[in-house]
Amino acid sequence: MRISDLARESGVSVATVKYYLREGLLPPGRLTATTQAQYGDEHVERLRLVRALLGPAGLSIAQVRRVLALVDEDRDVTFDLLGAVQHATADATTAADLAPALALVERAGWRIRPDSPEIAQLAAALAALGDAGFAIPERNLEAYLETSRIIADAEIANIPGDDPREALRYTVLGTILVEPLLLALRRLAQQDAALRRFGVTGPDRPRPAE
Amino acid sequence: MRISDLARESGVSVATVKYYLREGLLPPGRLTATTQAQYGDEHVERLRLVRALLGPAGLSIAQVRRVLALVDEDRDVTFDLLGAVQHATADATTAADLAPALALVERAGWRIRPDSPEIAQLAAALAALGDAGFAIPERNLEAYLETSRIIADAEIANIPGDDPREALRYTVLGTILVEPLLLALRRLAQQDAALRRFGVTGPDRPRPAE
Repeated sequence: MRISDLARESGVSVATVKYYLREGLLPPGRLTATTQAQYGDEHVERLRLVRALLGPAGLSIAQVRRVLALVDEDRDVTFDLLGAVQHATADATTAADLAPALALVERAGWRIRPDSPEIAQLAAALAALGDAGFAIPERNLEAYLETSRIIADAEIANIPGDDPREALRYTVLGTILVEPLLLALRRLAQQDAALRRFGVTGPDRPRPAE
Repeated sequence: MRISDLARESGVSVATVKYYLREGLLPPGRLTATTQAQYGDEHVERLRLVRALLGPAGLSIAQVRRVLALVDEDRDVTFDLLGAVQHATADATTAADLAPALALVERAGWRIRPDSPEIAQLAAALAALGDAGFAIPERNLEAYLETSRIIADAEIANIPGDDPREALRYTVLGTILVEPLLLALRRLAQQDAALRRFGVTGPDRPRPAE
């Protein structure tokens, strides 16, 4: 198909397709004339993936490029791969003290890569909570550690064992694209829990007289 | 203290303090001369909070302004407040189909506000997963719903019941500032789970000969 067909098929503009081509997020088409190229189903699929990564997952162009390089690699899923996924999408490092983050991981009993960017991310999150004067109640912290373990165990157990390419896609995309899903689910579950504890004083019900 | 002391005390530049003042993220100081103002401990505290919200939580200036307005309001914590927090920090709406998100909430059995921006957020996340060709395994989805419930129950149960101002701060900040913490914990727990399933093939151990 021509670039205009590829754009229409994927629901983006031709200018966007050209931008992704320039940025290397989309492989070039097969040249059929000096100024004309043909694109295939693999381009449609790749374009959808790029949109997904740039969308709710909120990655930058540079991060998407790194993630695509991982998806395209021919490697087995290992502990090592997970580190690579995490490095590819890590935010800038932090100046926060790492000790509280390392202590929390030790408390959880997790074995991790000592150079994990997530340690810096965790340290920055803990520092921000401290700066805001917010102390996490012990029971909440316990719930965070326990639920992280439950989620990770299910996710890693379900990495497909028989197809290395599928396993790679699952690991890379599952790590990144599930994050906005989890944040939305937590907030929705909070609504239900708040409704059970406080009852409704929402805009659609009469408020008590003041 | 003077603006230079406030900046030093908070670890930011005077230019940054002035920027926050202009943007209304920091209340003006007490004027002691036409061009000189005095600042107090409440400014130091507010500045720390602003940094925390703009930092790992990744809010925009406009979102921080809305969150601070909530923290400063004199209102009780209710189901309604939680909706306000969520609205204050919601991302732009999505064009994604809301039906799969609503079906997932119904499956979880949660009662939510039908106008929740999180429904759009959840719908966008599900659409991105679909676009990427990623099907969430049933066991994982079950874990996401169950752990969201555990977390939300602990968090809502621990909202302080005796001090309305403290309850307000807890709800607003706990919702927002804990998000980067949860994402970091999940990734660290994944490392531990991957290590248990796949063993180490990390850069610090000898790789098998190729």
